Amino acid sequence: MRFAVLTMQDALLALTKYWTDRGCMVVQPFNTEVGAGTLNPATILRVLGPEPWRVAYVEPSVRPDDSRYGENPNRLQTHTQFQVVLKPDPGNPQELFLDSLEALGIDIDAHDVRFVEDNWANPATGSWGLGWEVWLDGLEITQFTYFQQAGGMTLDPVSVEITYGIERIMMALQGVSHFKDIAYAPGISYGEAFGQAEYEMSRYYLDDADVESQKRLFEEYANEARRMIDDRLPVPAHIQVLRCSHTFNVLDARGAVSTTERAKAFGRMRTLAREVSRLWAERREELEYPLGLAELPAAAAEPTEFPRISGTRQLTFEIGTEEMPPSEVTKTAAAVQAALEEKLAATRLEHGRITTYATPRRVVAFVASVHAGEPDAERVVRGPRKSAAYDADGNLTKAAAGFARGQKVDESELHDLDVDGVEYVAVTKPDPGRGAAEVLSGVLSEIVAGLRSDKNMRWNDAKLSFTRPIRWLVALLGDEVVPVSVSSLAAGRTTRVHRTAAQPKVEIASAEGYLDLLRIHGIEADPARRRATVVEAAADLSAKVQGTVDVEGEAALVDQIVNLIEEPAPILGGFAPEYLDLPSEILTTVMRKHQRYLPVRDHDGKLLPHFVAVANGSVDEDLVRAGNEAVLRARYEDAAFFWRADLDTPLESMKAELEKLAFEERLGSMADRAGRIGRIAVKLAETVDVDGDDLTTLKRAAELAKFDLGSQMVVELTSLAGTMAREYAKRAGETEAVAQALFDMELPRSAGDPVPSTTPGALLALADRFDLLAGLFGVGAKPTGSSDPFALRRAAAGVVAILREHPELRAITLPIGLQAAADEIGAQGIDVPAESLDEVAEFTVRRYEQQLLDRGDDHLQVAAVLPLATAPAAADETLKSLQDLVGNSDFADLVAVLQRVRRIVPEGTAAEYDSTKLTEPAEVALHEAVQKIGQAPSALSDFVAATSVLVDPVNAFFDDILVMAKEPDLRAARLGLLATISKLAAPVLDWQALGTSLSPAE
Amino acid sequence: MRFAVLTMQDALLALTKYWTDRGCMVVQPFNTEVGAGTLNPATILRVLGPEPWRVAYVEPSVRPDDSRYGENPNRLQTHTQFQVVLKPDPGNPQELFLDSLEALGIDIDAHDVRFVEDNWANPATGSWGLGWEVWLDGLEITQFTYFQQAGGMTLDPVSVEITYGIERIMMALQGVSHFKDIAYAPGISYGEAFGQAEYEMSRYYLDDADVESQKRLFEEYANEARRMIDDRLPVPAHIQVLRCSHTFNVLDARGAVSTTERAKAFGRMRTLAREVSRLWAERREELEYPLGLAELPAAAAEPTEFPRISGTRQLTFEIGTEEMPPSEVTKTAAAVQAALEEKLAATRLEHGRITTYATPRRVVAFVASVHAGEPDAERVVRGPRKSAAYDADGNLTKAAAGFARGQKVDESELHDLDVDGVEYVAVTKPDPGRGAAEVLSGVLSEIVAGLRSDKNMRWNDAKLSFTRPIRWLVALLGDEVVPVSVSSLAAGRTTRVHRTAAQPKVEIASAEGYLDLLRIHGIEADPARRRATVVEAAADLSAKVQGTVDVEGEAALVDQIVNLIEEPAPILGGFAPEYLDLPSEILTTVMRKHQRYLPVRDHDGKLLPHFVAVANGSVDEDLVRAGNEAVLRARYEDAAFFWRADLDTPLESMKAELEKLAFEERLGSMADRAGRIGRIAVKLAETVDVDGDDLTTLKRAAELAKFDLGSQMVVELTSLAGTMAREYAKRAGETEAVAQALFDMELPRSAGDPVPSTTPGALLALADRFDLLAGLFGVGAKPTGSSDPFALRRAAAGVVAILREHPELRAITLPIGLQAAADEIGAQGIDVPAESLDEVAEFTVRRYEQQLLDRGDDHLQVAAVLPLATAPAAADETLKSLQDLVGNSDFADLVAVLQRVRRIVPEGTAAEYDSTKLTEPAEVALHEAVQKIGQAPSALSDFVAATSVLVDPVNAFFDDILVMAKEPDLRAARLGLLATISKLAAPVLDWQALGTSLSPAE
Repeated sequence: MRFAVLTMQDALLALTKYWTDRGCMVVQPFNTEVGAGTLNPATILRVLGPEPWRVAYVEPSVRPDDSRYGENPNRLQTHTQFQVVLKPDPGNPQELFLDSLEALGIDIDAHDVRFVEDNWANPATGSWGLGWEVWLDGLEITQFTYFQQAGGMTLDPVSVEITYGIERIMMALQGVSHFKDIAYAPGISYGEAFGQAEYEMSRYYLDDADVESQKRLFEEYANEARRMIDDRLPVPAHIQVLRCSHTFNVLDARGAVSTTERAKAFGRMRTLAREVSRLWAERREELEYPLGLAELPAAAAEPTEFPRISGTRQLTFEIGTEEMPPSEVTKTAAAVQAALEEKLAATRLEHGRITTYATPRRVVAFVASVHAGEPDAERVVRGPRKSAAYDADGNLTKAAAGFARGQKVDESELHDLDVDGVEYVAVTKPDPGRGAAEVLSGVLSEIVAGLRSDKNMRWNDAKLSFTRPIRWLVALLGDEVVPVSVSSLAAGRTTRVHRTAAQPKVEIASAEGYLDLLRIHGIEADPARRRATVVEAAADLSAKVQGTVDVEGEAALVDQIVNLIEEPAPILGGFAPEYLDLPSEILTTVMRKHQRYLPVRDHDGKLLPHFVAVANGSVDEDLVRAGNEAVLRARYEDAAFFWRADLDTPLESMKAELEKLAFEERLGSMADRAGRIGRIAVKLAETVDVDGDDLTTLKRAAELAKFDLGSQMVVELTSLAGTMAREYAKRAGETEAVAQALFDMELPRSAGDPVPSTTPGALLALADRFDLLAGLFGVGAKPTGSSDPFALRRAAAGVVAILREHPELRAITLPIGLQAAADEIGAQGIDVPAESLDEVAEFTVRRYEQQLLDRGDDHLQVAAVLPLATAPAAADETLKSLQDLVGNSDFADLVAVLQRVRRIVPEGTAAEYDSTKLTEPAEVALHEAVQKIGQAPSALSDFVAATSVLVDPVNAFFDDILVMAKEPDLRAARLGLLATISKLAAPVLDWQALGTSLSPAE
Repeated sequence: MRFAVLTMQDALLALTKYWTDRGCMVVQPFNTEVGAGTLNPATILRVLGPEPWRVAYVEPSVRPDDSRYGENPNRLQTHTQFQVVLKPDPGNPQELFLDSLEALGIDIDAHDVRFVEDNWANPATGSWGLGWEVWLDGLEITQFTYFQQAGGMTLDPVSVEITYGIERIMMALQGVSHFKDIAYAPGISYGEAFGQAEYEMSRYYLDDADVESQKRLFEEYANEARRMIDDRLPVPAHIQVLRCSHTFNVLDARGAVSTTERAKAFGRMRTLAREVSRLWAERREELEYPLGLAELPAAAAEPTEFPRISGTRQLTFEIGTEEMPPSEVTKTAAAVQAALEEKLAATRLEHGRITTYATPRRVVAFVASVHAGEPDAERVVRGPRKSAAYDADGNLTKAAAGFARGQKVDESELHDLDVDGVEYVAVTKPDPGRGAAEVLSGVLSEIVAGLRSDKNMRWNDAKLSFTRPIRWLVALLGDEVVPVSVSSLAAGRTTRVHRTAAQPKVEIASAEGYLDLLRIHGIEADPARRRATVVEAAADLSAKVQGTVDVEGEAALVDQIVNLIEEPAPILGGFAPEYLDLPSEILTTVMRKHQRYLPVRDHDGKLLPHFVAVANGSVDEDLVRAGNEAVLRARYEDAAFFWRADLDTPLESMKAELEKLAFEERLGSMADRAGRIGRIAVKLAETVDVDGDDLTTLKRAAELAKFDLGSQMVVELTSLAGTMAREYAKRAGETEAVAQALFDMELPRSAGDPVPSTTPGALLALADRFDLLAGLFGVGAKPTGSSDPFALRRAAAGVVAILREHPELRAITLPIGLQAAADEIGAQGIDVPAESLDEVAEFTVRRYEQQLLDRGDDHLQVAAVLPLATAPAAADETLKSLQDLVGNSDFADLVAVLQRVRRIVPEGTAAEYDSTKLTEPAEVALHEAVQKIGQAPSALSDFVAATSVLVDPVNAFFDDILVMAKEPDLRAARLGLLATISKLAAPVLDWQALGTSLSPAE
């Protein structure tokens, strides 16, 4: 007899059956420990090369680091993956996947199933892909990836990789909250079946494995892998690489890998893995591809006939995609809008307003009142110069006759054409306007082909490349389909609505009816309307529990939410009030970051045990609520587990963990870095004469710096770094000030985040960032293009923000701070070249410039103060003065004379002169005025006050005196006088940059 | 769309579904290489202890030694097992298994499915079980085992282990002849999917794995296993043991394990495996058995009521079993017959003839004319002695009165009883006869409980133990069921017929109808009738191809066949004539040993390309023929593969392989042993003055001795040792004589086998056996009870047989041969104690004695010649003479006087005397007769001829002379004279043993 509940083994069988019925081969789990199904050669090797490959298998994946003695409800050293690889992409892998959920008995109409951006990369093996984590009512149940590169090789064709997390799915389906309670087989729970193994293997991995032996094993495996590669045997070589990897993981779980060892081991494994991949690909070629060659869809036929419309009609153009990352949704809409505008402008087709909307699955452009066609026009074709077109007798030359013949016109049709005063012969030919559909066909095709995102991928299309696959196109001009063909795609009138709809594909009668039709099918294409719905619902739902949602404060999250759904279905959920005992940052971080839930607070801002989740489309609200609540409960349970574990751990023990955290290969461990930060901060404190309590606080905080990176909580939720430091420090009896400094040192965590509120915190935060910048620039790891893995732009922006808001630290200029960091790094044997420091300083100043421009400052004024920006607070003050002075005519006069002086003085002129040579009254007067000023103050307002007296003498000087006198000594003296004035002004700001903005008279 | 053919992955899914539907849990293949599914902890550990466990899983089993680069059609380094464990035995595992074949689409009605004895033992881990290999039309598709012991621990309850060989099954189902051609998944063959891995892993295992590294790995794993055992973590410890095992297998496949290393490695692994098992069992107990306790069937109710019959009826008693080993079928029938006879004789129940029959699945006993009950009888109870029963007055004593009271009789009922002349008082009480059913109930129950075989097992019965499970009992007395209850079994009237029958269970109306009813259902209980059918069919079928089957020569095989089936279905099959190019011994060995096919020869004894197979019950003949032919083809293909490979290998290379073959831990490798054999043989040759060609032949053969043990063919078919040596030697250009000697040296291979035909062969064969005997007795490994793993009894019998048939080697007595062997063994540092050699000689003489007794010689005559048997040929001659002399009265007289002499001479009397003391005529006459004989010849007939002259003088001496004269010197002289005669006779034979047989007058 069968139990009503689907057991885990039933689920595995159901998935196996489902995928084999869809042409997948089944293979067995690998007989060497693997950390993920991906590493089974049935994935990591088979995705290489041109052979087709469809496979499904179970893979018990071993992650020693996840060992918890079976105590943590959600974490196991061996968890069960169900892995599917489809090569090539069958074109509908998401739909296939959703059907597989139904095969598991999951009612996907009732549940909220979502594809949430999640990309995968394993730099160690040169492998990456783009895709999603699939959510079931907020629970991540599957990793779905379009595999783009493996072992450093670009994949062609691309494979779809679907990895189900079986324990997760089973816990959700069975409604149990500990993996041990999963009904594994009829009458046997997971814990009963595997509990002992889970405990004992945890013991082995965490406590008992012999470290020295494992290190020796690593060597044996790595050497054997090398030998097998040399013997051209990729299969046994891969096994050895897997063993290396597992052995490394064991060592890591035993806490026995130093930073240097880690870097070295990764380096070896990376090299080996890449060579295995290359070798496999070669061997398959030598074997002449036993499985044949995969075929991609053929290119769509190029359109040859175009429908005609009469009057003006609307164009509706829909690009149907798989779920785009939220950040790409808005950007892509804007890009399509811009491209449409530009490309249509390049035609003669008249049209009305262009609007674009986007959802995660579509970008839609509407062009109002498109005319039926382009007006007819003429086209002038230029021939030879007239002088070459007629001989002396006024007869046509051979060249001109040839031109006429080439243009297929009678010689009599040649006429003259004046181009910039040069005369040519030319012909004028009719240029009949194309029909709208023909014009649009080309334009739209180019737009699709040209779509790009920050990170692009390939799928089963031979030519396209975009953030996610483009699966369909709709192009309607009024009632007519505009034939658009791009690679394998051809536009039609069929759109797609929710995948769970009875009819997921819908025909659109006319362009004008598109939006309403989508609404009928529960899809709101307009993001503004989706946003409004979310905001309104958040208010209504939270009001039910006497709470509010801070939609302003959570704007970024709301934006994400809006771009994660096509039809908002907001749901109010709750959690057990006991969890409110945890620091609220933990709770809200989990909600926001992992779940995209909006936290609900009372009117005093205190967190309530509620949240607003926004599902997609019509779902069974109770079911989805229950699911989301269960997910949150599990996550909070995890967090509570870490919280308790961390509270039981002395701060020093957590700090000691930093030894094991790699920072950067050459720059040592996180412990090394934390040590440097502390020392740099103390040194900077001397620069600004910090003393007393602040100094005491700083010194203690420096000792503890970054200790929370060694806490379980921060290992799990890295964004809580600093927050947890403050919490744990307080509870460990540190002073409030120390706790605050430890929190502060992580600020600002992002643009717009507050800066440290205390001086010790600010010093630590600066030291942190100076170390990061000097170190990474020093070892040549500066950001390139969009690649900024160490977030150096953010670090530099942070330095600027802190220095701007801590005037008491003004003495810490960028060079001083960076040099302090370079000294500490140098003490560890890494020489940071002076040019690198200059480069960092320049890089940082650029961040300052960006901050000013972003807030809307005049770019010339900004440019004017940039030379001061190595001390951003000073630059700020100057800018402020400058802005106060704008419109002040005296100031304008001063600027004008200074500009005039600067322009006339040749580069390199010394600011000195023999005053005895100056005899003319105007030059004497100016000399005296300059002498009177002496050393001018550098603050702008003071400078202006002090130097306005120069305006008249300078003007008089220029009126009366010929600077470039013939007599050299005299000329030198006059230029020297002007150079002295110029030098006087130079430190104040960049007068040249300011230049024209204030002196229109010039 | 599905292919018509069941793919391999479909088959795995179908099996998984089938077994999960029957309550099995599914687990994944293990993530460390295992050599067999048994070693997955889901079997080897879970069978321990009292918890229930039902599991099914796929296990890709890795056997480096089976690597063939994917070239051999039937052999892979990784083959796929499907493993099922049922704990406890569900009572019908065979039926469940057969149903699973139907789930694979196998029509078990049409096919010939058989359970053929095959026991499993892994001494390395102290594990064993009894069971079968399951044949599908002659193809071994599954191993079926009742697991009795694991890791040295007796299993309670017992687990049923079913291991399907998936590639085999698929090749048969799909009708393909190379594993690469198996349809693995729709459109993908096994070779396409896994061919590269098969090749590369073969390369790794056979050629490329780094030997020194593997040795270091072995150490690491073994040490880690030890540490984990010490840490009481059996799960990680087991993994390390598996790694040891795999690593060892890799080393072995690389040919890198010396004998010493092998022994050492096995010792370590054995110890570790046993400790892991013990530890696991302990840990489960500590965990309080998370899966609960398995339950066995309850004991059947003890019978309380017994039916009555009238008149006499037949008893039919059937013990229903699972397939007994053929050798046990006949023995068990005999044992039941004997037990019935004995036990019924101990009752008063009258009955007619007892007959027993047996098939593999039942033992049936018939008792004719059983009376309705025992006759009534009286029982006399003895009381006190009469003298104590009556006092002086003739009144009853207290004792006698007490006796009467105790017997519940009136004092008046006491009567007298004379026992051996002593008078007692007694009472006589009626002893009413029991009904037949009651009598039989007890007898039959005892018989079942007492059933034993050479090797017994347990199943799901709490008390029974037998060669295979007993599953049902039928006991019918006429129409009535005799209530028999044994442990969980209760007899009824339901028998079982073929498992594939529409109604596999059949009710029996009456005892008398049993045999016919069985015949109606296609079962012949009488082995003689089955044999007759087989013999007749073999003749008929072979005649169709102008051939014959030598049923006399194949008697043992025919006996096996008869005991492997319940209903003979003989089938004539054929094979491709090309295979006849292989030596015929290979072909017939494969037929007989692996397939139990009867070879068909032409009338000149030349093998024909045909065979007779005997299926069980009604099958689809064409299907079964085709199946059996395919199996034979595969086996011949294998053999041809080995044959070709061996022919490509120089003899010296094969011989070099002997270094890697372990012989016995202390006695070194097979190469060591072969070397000793050669040297012993040459030394023995000196003893008997072999020279000329024979010596040349011997020396060369000695160099090559046993080289064929290193051939692939003999590794596969060990019984071809010698045969292949001859074939390969001839083809390698050795002389015919050397080839023959190499063949001869393996003779005799069994009782009845011919002995070596040549002197060099005989010398080698003797040397072989002397080495074996001296060596193993020397290291204390002599046979005990039924355990004779090195077949020393056979070796000793071989020595005797060779020496008896090679009189030219008479000078090689047992002591001389054994000493030569001991010297060679000693030269390798192993001291063979003199007592061991004596023990071997005695052991060997016992074999000689047995041979004589077996051929029916008089045991006294045999005993008489045994002292000569250290030279068996001499003993044979004496025995021959003795037998010629029996009935000869002169000889009888001689024997009589010699006996008389022997008896009177005290032990230890010296055979010398002072003849001057002898003065009486009779003693002088005897003295002179003795003097005249001088040294008597030792050959019996010569001795008799020479010594008959003593008969009269001896008789006269005894008539006239008082031997035990009072005068000491005289007495000594007379005894000395007699002792001299005795000594004269002593070497000839053991006159004392002969003793009474020839001198009835005594």
